[in-house]
Amino acid sequence: MATIAYEDLTPGRVVDLGKVEVDRDEMLEFARRFDPQPFHLDEEAGRNSVLGGLCASGWYTASLWMRAYVDHVLADSTSQGSPGGNELSWTAPVFPGDVLHFQLEVLSRRLSKSKPGLGLVEITGTADRGPDRVLRFTFLGMFGTRA
Amino acid sequence: MATIAYEDLTPGRVVDLGKVEVDRDEMLEFARRFDPQPFHLDEEAGRNSVLGGLCASGWYTASLWMRAYVDHVLADSTSQGSPGGNELSWTAPVFPGDVLHFQLEVLSRRLSKSKPGLGLVEITGTADRGPDRVLRFTFLGMFGTRA
Repeated sequence: MATIAYEDLTPGRVVDLGKVEVDRDEMLEFARRFDPQPFHLDEEAGRNSVLGGLCASGWYTASLWMRAYVDHVLADSTSQGSPGGNELSWTAPVFPGDVLHFQLEVLSRRLSKSKPGLGLVEITGTADRGPDRVLRFTFLGMFGTRA
Repeated sequence: MATIAYEDLTPGRVVDLGKVEVDRDEMLEFARRFDPQPFHLDEEAGRNSVLGGLCASGWYTASLWMRAYVDHVLADSTSQGSPGGNELSWTAPVFPGDVLHFQLEVLSRRLSKSKPGLGLVEITGTADRGPDRVLRFTFLGMFGTRA
């Protein structure tokens, strides 16, 4: 049986998802494939943009958060995926070498009315660089109940 | 001067971002790195999940949409990035070989009060597989004005 089920995700619970250093090479590889905007690819273009420097695609930052969420929570859980979220905010640019601290907080939860044994958990995921929040994502996670 | 500026993004405007076939190998590579949940990695685990089959990470689908948006709009625009969005919905699972049709629609726009020459454009991006919507993302894009 998985360690983390619907019953464990109580509103107010905060889960530390660890820290990750942003790897410049992978950041650039991601941008070349999925988000080839100048400020994600080139130092000078980054400096000349409102973002202030060569910075990560927001999708890369979100994907790094996702990996931390899988490693720390989903891998040993009753997760059944997610229908999405109602907020995805890139609140500050992310630069190569930044150390990002990932966390999540459970906001609320309810049992599914249509699917017995399934619950919906509202979660806010965050990434912080020191005192600066760089990512906030609020979404619904679907988790099986223990029973 | 870029072809697409704030002035061109009028509310109601729909932009076709083309079609892409979901590549199984890349879909799996993305999942192994960023979202290694069983239903994103393994046929049998996918079939036994509520998702009904081996399917793409939602972040992969969103990243494919982003690339189409860069190719068709941002690459020749005054874009200055995005602070994020208020909806990101994965409305149906995406399977290898699916052909996704990407579009966007401009919902509203306003000039920035604090930054002259910059406008905020509210956009909904979508991905459809035939008649089925698989992704919807509503976000703000920052674009320079022509003047």
